[in-house]
Order: sequence, then structure tokens, then C-alpha cells
Amino acid sequence: MSTTVQPTPKTTMMQAMVYAAPGKIALRDCPKPVIQAPGDAIVRVTHTTICGTDLHILKGDVATAKPGRILGHEGVGVIDSVGAAVTAFKPGDPVLISCVSACGTCEFCRKQMYSHCTTGGWILGNSIDGCQAEYVRAPHADMSLYHIPKGSDEEALVMLSDILPTGLECGTLNGKVQPGSTVAIVGAGPIGLAALLTAQFYSPGKIIMIDLDDNRLAIAKKFGATDTINSSDGKALAAVMKLTGDAGVDTAIEAVGIPATFELCQELIAAGGVIANIGVHGKPASLHLETLWDRNIAITTRLVDTATIPMLFKTVAAKKIDPALLITHHFTLAEGEKAYETFGNAAKTKALKVIITASST
Amino acid sequence: MSTTVQPTPKTTMMQAMVYAAPGKIALRDCPKPVIQAPGDAIVRVTHTTICGTDLHILKGDVATAKPGRILGHEGVGVIDSVGAAVTAFKPGDPVLISCVSACGTCEFCRKQMYSHCTTGGWILGNSIDGCQAEYVRAPHADMSLYHIPKGSDEEALVMLSDILPTGLECGTLNGKVQPGSTVAIVGAGPIGLAALLTAQFYSPGKIIMIDLDDNRLAIAKKFGATDTINSSDGKALAAVMKLTGDAGVDTAIEAVGIPATFELCQELIAAGGVIANIGVHGKPASLHLETLWDRNIAITTRLVDTATIPMLFKTVAAKKIDPALLITHHFTLAEGEKAYETFGNAAKTKALKVIITASST
Repeated sequence: MSTTVQPTPKTTMMQAMVYAAPGKIALRDCPKPVIQAPGDAIVRVTHTTICGTDLHILKGDVATAKPGRILGHEGVGVIDSVGAAVTAFKPGDPVLISCVSACGTCEFCRKQMYSHCTTGGWILGNSIDGCQAEYVRAPHADMSLYHIPKGSDEEALVMLSDILPTGLECGTLNGKVQPGSTVAIVGAGPIGLAALLTAQFYSPGKIIMIDLDDNRLAIAKKFGATDTINSSDGKALAAVMKLTGDAGVDTAIEAVGIPATFELCQELIAAGGVIANIGVHGKPASLHLETLWDRNIAITTRLVDTATIPMLFKTVAAKKIDPALLITHHFTLAEGEKAYETFGNAAKTKALKVIITASST
Repeated sequence: MSTTVQPTPKTTMMQAMVYAAPGKIALRDCPKPVIQAPGDAIVRVTHTTICGTDLHILKGDVATAKPGRILGHEGVGVIDSVGAAVTAFKPGDPVLISCVSACGTCEFCRKQMYSHCTTGGWILGNSIDGCQAEYVRAPHADMSLYHIPKGSDEEALVMLSDILPTGLECGTLNGKVQPGSTVAIVGAGPIGLAALLTAQFYSPGKIIMIDLDDNRLAIAKKFGATDTINSSDGKALAAVMKLTGDAGVDTAIEAVGIPATFELCQELIAAGGVIANIGVHGKPASLHLETLWDRNIAITTRLVDTATIPMLFKTVAAKKIDPALLITHHFTLAEGEKAYETFGNAAKTKALKVIITASST
């Protein structure tokens, strides 16, 4: 523990991946961040990664992220300096950075709805500079950073910043996955696979993975899917009904974010089931209340709160999950543009998550 | 308790309200029902009522209800005879008839999802003859009838067959109404008012009632709404935001069944809130996932299970609710056609629930 205020460092430069303009990512020299508020910490980033949301920003879809922004909201690193109010961390501590910054005291934080924190939420690499850099300023450090246990595979823990809590909270937990229950996950991209990995904590009887890509379905099978369906023939619903004795599934997890996949979830859900939406949607979907009004179902949405990061640390330590499974490619920060190219062309490169090593540990 | 098999009575006739043809209800002489299965009971109906669903049947909207069907799924009466397997009731017992018949043993009944019972559910006055008659056959009697406590206002208890469990289960419970929370109920018809009455069990801080009809809003105010909004000026959303400090409501209960009111619920729901659908919808609504995907909300649907009838009996006995408030008109069975006319023209007649007295007690 340390309550020492660090002296404001003189401006030094660092490398970072910057959203230069719509469609354009660039490696740039930027000023190293400094403490701005007493709750801040500066973290020297060792490993970071790229998220589908970063690609949305590049497309210009995220209004709060302006050109010039350093991207990235996932990473591990080492505490460089802390503000006067930070009590849980001191320089030199290895830490995980949550994608969500949380004050811990507002109305939403008190309900563990950290994603809606009134002075935080998903701001890193969005409305403030992010983690795809040598250093990052982490606001509300006491609530938003996590100590990394000694001997951890730090690179693999980057998967605990966002993707695994998202699969667990928005998919598995919201979807009420139960021992012996039937689960369908629509979309076998990184997020769908994170839902698949975390769903297995709760011992469902069947996890049916649905995607258009045979390569991703093969990975899903390796990751624990009991059944896989390539939906490109338009017969996914019939296949799910056959697998479930015409009952449909207890949990349908939407991990794509387009109307067609959300509507498929409505067709394959059993009476009394839950549709858990993870997908980031750009337009409305048709909700078939004319068939669903009397089906006793629930539909849930959620921006990840990362409230389950402590639980996920324990599952990694207990080897109930292997986060490294999601990592397919490695780059240095200097190769950042190539990392984006690789991640952005996943159909060709077969990329799931790419690790960018920002500074040596 | 009695396990006596009653001798099959000779066919006698009775009066009943029959769905004669699309748009046409008729008082007719029909054969008195007889025991068909060991779990059946024949109930002499004393009081029954008309439901919005009966009007849907008359419009031809309910495919399972064919012309010739005796309508009605709500009522109280006295046991006339019981099948060999009925153990909980004997002739002469005063009973409440649930709108949902439940075997008690199938997969859904074991989860208290009686509405989806594989040999029951909502069948009375739908796929089998119903309660708007001098006598009704109640299948699965042990699970689907309820003893009426001595000294009850039996007429008022008709509200426990369907409308109050619907308001409680599909609205208040699904909507997770909490002490101090804010609730909006869209639609102040009988079902919205039933949600309003039962929501007060859980001491919410605000119950905002929204409707187009000032008369219904005045009733809502009398029934305990803290605020009422006439939405005919298209400014309901702004009014709700003003009442909630721009947060929106924790619970939005949809009690109309059309796309416009369901979409209003999506606009006025707070982050972390629940939209509980009660309305019977005939077409899809637009689900605005592009704004809701990150709002941590839930949407629920439910066909009433009437699992809360025992709880409602206790709340009536404890005077926590007065079911008689919902009753505005009285008719005899001979006046059944006039009863339908009155209920079907509620805007003019100001009818909420109408009681039809079928036989003297």
C-alpha cells in the first residue's frame, strides 16, 4: 500500500495505436500520460489486445471516440505511478486493467453495474486514451485495476479485461445457464467462444454452436461445444429442434449483433427460456411478440460490468478455464498496424484474439 | 375428501354463452357437462366474468377456439360431482376455478409453469367448454380448483381466476417491482389496473399510469397510482423523464398489446430496468437493440400460470387488496349478451370487469 503522491513526470513520448481518421489506424508518438486525478494510476502496459469494438470505432460507429484517440481497453501491465487517493496499488505492482472504469460509489457501482458508472464505464480507448500504448492512465484505479497473482501467465490474463467477463456476464449468467440445460450460441467468433468457455462452468447438458464458418465451428468443438451447426443452408432452426426433441433451447446466446441472428434466437428458444444478447447492434430487430407473448421467456441485454473478474481469476488459478485458448497471434506494438490487419481479416487469417506486446516485463 | 365415483348423470340441459360464429356471441341451451376423466370435477358455476381474451375469440383471433364453444375461463362455484381420482374436493365444496388447468406432474407443472402444462394450460373456454354456463367441467380438478374460505365475498374472488394473477405474475413479479422503485404501467384497462393493485404489495416509490382515457386514469389514481399521464398528446416519454429525474423507470409494464405501447416502454426504461409484457400481441414490435444492447435491461413475457392464487387468497383475507374494486357491472346469465355488449364497449360504458351470476348460491 502507498499513499505517496508521485511527482508529475516531465513530458516524455511513447508509442501508441491511434484512431487517425475513419478507416485509419496509425502507430504514432504520443505524450506519455500523467496523473490527472487523485484516483488515477499510470500503468506501463506489457500486453494488450484488439477488440471488435475497436473496429467499430475505426468505422466511425462510436460517436464518443474521436479521431486522435489512443485505442484499446484491455491489457496487463505494471503500476508506474499512482495518485494521492490510490490505496490498493503501488509502483511495481503487476495489474490487470478492466475495460470498465468504476468509481465504486455511485448509484450504479453500488449495484455492481460498473458499466454504467456515472464517471466511468467504458471510457478507456473511447472517450479517454486507451491501452494500446506503452503507458495508459487508469482512472478510479482502486476499483478498476486488479492485482495479478505471482506466477500467472500474464499474457493470457489479458482475456480477463473484457472478452471473458463479457461471455460470462452477458451470455452465461444473463442466460441463466444451468446444470443439464440446453444452450445455443449463435456466433462462434471470439465473443461466442468466450460464452462457450464460461458456460461450461455451469455444466449444461448441450452447448450447440451455430456459425457460418466451418473453421470456427471446428474450434468450438475443440473448446467444448457438444454440437455444431453451419447455418449457411438456412436450416439451423430445424437442426436445433431435432437436437432438443422439438423443445428448443433453455438459453440462446446472441453473439453476432445483426437482426437475422437475433431473430433466429427467438425461433429456437424453449418456453420458459432466456435469450441473452451479447451482440453490439447497429439497428433494430423485429421482436415477435405475436408468438412470444405467452411463452414465458426473457430477453436480456448488458454492457459488461467486469464484476466477475475476481471470479474469473479464481477459475484460471483452479484451471477451470484456459484463457490462452483464445489467443492465435502475437505482435509487438511496432507491428500494431499489422495486428489490426490480421484481426480485421479474421475470416482469412483465422484470428481469434491477437496479443500486442507493448513493453517488456 | 371423497374418492367416490359419481354415477354418470342423464343428459340434462343448461344455459351457456356460446361463441356462435366470428363476431357473434349467443345464449344457448347446451348439454350439462359430465365427468370424462377420473381427475375431472363438474362445478355448478355461481359467478363468472368476461375477459378481453373472450373478445379476441369472438374476433376469430384464437385458432384453438372453434364456433360452438362455450366461452369463459374465470369463475367461482360449488362442486357438483367429482371423478374417481379427485381427492381434494367433494360435492358441495365452494371453489374458485383457475383460468389455467394443470396436471401438476408434467415437466412444466413441476416448474410451476402451469400455463404450459402438456395436458392443460389455458384450455377452458378455448379448446374445451368454459365457465360462462350453469355448469363447467374442470379437468385436473385437484390442481386447478381452489377451496374458498368460509365467509368470503365469492363474487369478488372471481378476480382471482385470471386478472389478478395476471397482473401480479406477468406484471409485478416479472417486472421485479421493489420497495421504493419507480414503475410505469402503460395501459389502464382492467389488466393494467390489476398490475397497479398488485404492484402495491411491494411498496414501489412511484407508480406512473399511462393511458389515453381520462376516466381510466382517474380510476387509476383512486386505485393508488402516484402519477397519471394522458399520452394522447405524444409527450408521455418527456413526462416520465421529468418524474424520474431523467433516469427512466425501473419497471415498465406493457398492458395494451400493440407495437406503439411496447416501443414506449423501451424508451422510458432505466438502465438496469425490466420491461414486463402483459399485452396479448397480434404482430411484431420493433426492438431497438441499437440503443438497448448496452443498457442492462430485461424484457419478459408470460402467460399467467396462476401459481400465485394461494398468495392472492391470503392478501384478500388480510385486506391487502380489494378485488371488488375491479367490478363495475352485474348481469344474470340470461343477460349474457348484454354483458358482452357492455364489456365490449368499455370506452362508453366505463366497464372494468362485469360479473355474470350463473346460478344462485
